[in-house]
Amino acid sequence: MVKRVHNFSAGPAVLPVEVLLEIQQELVSYKGKGLSVMEMSHRSVEFQAIMDDAINDVKSILNLGDDFEVLFLQGGASTQFFMIPLNFCPDDKVANYINTGAWATKALKEAAKNGKQMHVAASSEDKQFTYIPKQYTISENPAYLHITTNNTIRGTEFKTALDTGDIPLIADMSSNIMSKSIDAKKYALIYAGAQKNIGPAGTTLVIIRKDMIEKINPGLPTMMDYNTHISKSSMFNTPPCFAIYVVGRVLKWILAKGGLEAIEKINIEKANYVYDILDNSDFYEGTVVMEDRSMMNIPFRLPTEELEKKFIAESKEMGMLNLKGHRSVGGCRASLYNSLPMKAAQDLAQFMIEFEEKNK
Amino acid sequence: MVKRVHNFSAGPAVLPVEVLLEIQQELVSYKGKGLSVMEMSHRSVEFQAIMDDAINDVKSILNLGDDFEVLFLQGGASTQFFMIPLNFCPDDKVANYINTGAWATKALKEAAKNGKQMHVAASSEDKQFTYIPKQYTISENPAYLHITTNNTIRGTEFKTALDTGDIPLIADMSSNIMSKSIDAKKYALIYAGAQKNIGPAGTTLVIIRKDMIEKINPGLPTMMDYNTHISKSSMFNTPPCFAIYVVGRVLKWILAKGGLEAIEKINIEKANYVYDILDNSDFYEGTVVMEDRSMMNIPFRLPTEELEKKFIAESKEMGMLNLKGHRSVGGCRASLYNSLPMKAAQDLAQFMIEFEEKNK
Repeated sequence: MVKRVHNFSAGPAVLPVEVLLEIQQELVSYKGKGLSVMEMSHRSVEFQAIMDDAINDVKSILNLGDDFEVLFLQGGASTQFFMIPLNFCPDDKVANYINTGAWATKALKEAAKNGKQMHVAASSEDKQFTYIPKQYTISENPAYLHITTNNTIRGTEFKTALDTGDIPLIADMSSNIMSKSIDAKKYALIYAGAQKNIGPAGTTLVIIRKDMIEKINPGLPTMMDYNTHISKSSMFNTPPCFAIYVVGRVLKWILAKGGLEAIEKINIEKANYVYDILDNSDFYEGTVVMEDRSMMNIPFRLPTEELEKKFIAESKEMGMLNLKGHRSVGGCRASLYNSLPMKAAQDLAQFMIEFEEKNK
Repeated sequence: MVKRVHNFSAGPAVLPVEVLLEIQQELVSYKGKGLSVMEMSHRSVEFQAIMDDAINDVKSILNLGDDFEVLFLQGGASTQFFMIPLNFCPDDKVANYINTGAWATKALKEAAKNGKQMHVAASSEDKQFTYIPKQYTISENPAYLHITTNNTIRGTEFKTALDTGDIPLIADMSSNIMSKSIDAKKYALIYAGAQKNIGPAGTTLVIIRKDMIEKINPGLPTMMDYNTHISKSSMFNTPPCFAIYVVGRVLKWILAKGGLEAIEKINIEKANYVYDILDNSDFYEGTVVMEDRSMMNIPFRLPTEELEKKFIAESKEMGMLNLKGHRSVGGCRASLYNSLPMKAAQDLAQFMIEFEEKNK
């Protein structure tokens, strides 16, 4: 057996070891074809099958029909931040955003920067983004409402999809895509960098409801126009083939686990190992309003920064990596994405208990 | 030994088997660290070392100093097509292009589409792009001159860097980057999708001479602004880590081979196996002016389309893949990138001789 650490990275993040072993096995010769997936023409029968499978499995997992387009693009969520207003906010309409943290702020700034009318429909900035706003006010002539369903840095999460009626709901799901059952049909557009819950860095999943296509602004740069990628099924130019292939294998792994209902149960159990400690300790302190806390990213503080440093150093020695909080907020953070094994959450909980006993 | 085919794909293309075996070996646990490169935080010490090595090795191979910035971006050459005019063509200047084929045409169209003044300084469209224009006429107030150094579809190649004096020379080198010794210092900007000569699909190498930075237009979308990526050394957002890692290993392989002078000698020898047959046959016909023909992509025709189909089918049975010409031009094409083993070129030549004998 190859040695493996417990990897609590916020992203790029842990992948299922079963998937890594499969990929390793066929790295030099995919299915005995005599070449690696990295060496295949994207126009080959073999790669086309990999792409088709990935698209179909996304639809299957999220229970979506033919009224949705599934794309695998490049450039990360950061590129979506400006593609969305560029494509879907005409000059006479207003791009609406709920601001729940650093990434939501980046998204709304990009809309404003590109000369679009932008409106902040709600914000939790007044309390350092430690909660999800429950009320929001939509502008006149809204083009769409954009939300960030999970906030990686602060560890908050929307618990249900908003009901926005006729207003297209657009969501950055980078850090909780496919972590639980959702009603994906409520969203006009979903996007997610792959590198947290569904694969390696290098591709961005974009799901577009087909009624949105007619709303796309005309005259856009070719690569920034969703039409370009929809009309060529993500193959207008060479796609990031290997990243898509790995995502495809992770999707098969999710399906084999029993889909999102099963995954959600496991994720709740994993998160509870850590939250139970936070809730029953005067030593560790969760930083988020209880009702809004994320199942994926759990930030917490210790009594002093010195103890936090000690906690991070000792956990690392125990083979538990990346428990340091984001550099912008400090403290500690455990990211418990889909692929993190149950054993990792259990071992972390055990370590937290022992560390408290020794240091309180 | 794992079975391997001879892969003449125009891209994504063959990689060195030595590199694939290394990557396979450390896929599940990189250097015994207990996690895959795909699972590493891009802020980790390990990944930072991978990125730094790749940047330094690009400079070392191309003999570039600290007056050049090396970036690894996403979105392929197609994204560079519009980033270049967006960044480097102000409204009062003119973007100049030499049009030598399908990709050059896409590049110049994107400049025009983005509302820039565009001038075609020379074109070989009059003869279906089967040669490289030797003369060109620069517009008034030129922002830059853009060339495509190797034309993958038609198989032509600029043999030396143009001398454009004060006018910044910008080059798409996607299909011949690092295939031969060049005077890289002559270029203000070089870009190349990795998936032909230096790695898998999913990252684009961009090299910018530092005096170009002050010319960047203000107010650009964050991800489309070269300043964003230069100021954060390609880590403004999560980079395509695994693709960069593979490129890094291919760069080490190039260095171990003896750098570009050694690579060029090998590439000449490989190409000559095929060109010698074209030059001494009434059966096969090269489609390109002799003095401009590419060392990387060799298009050729057989007496009939029927024979071409037969040639492609029989070569495939012999384990020689992707000898079909680009769908826009037909015929046959052999791509002989850096990583294609000498044996593949020898076997192709032998097959061509035997096929001619049987079918002429």
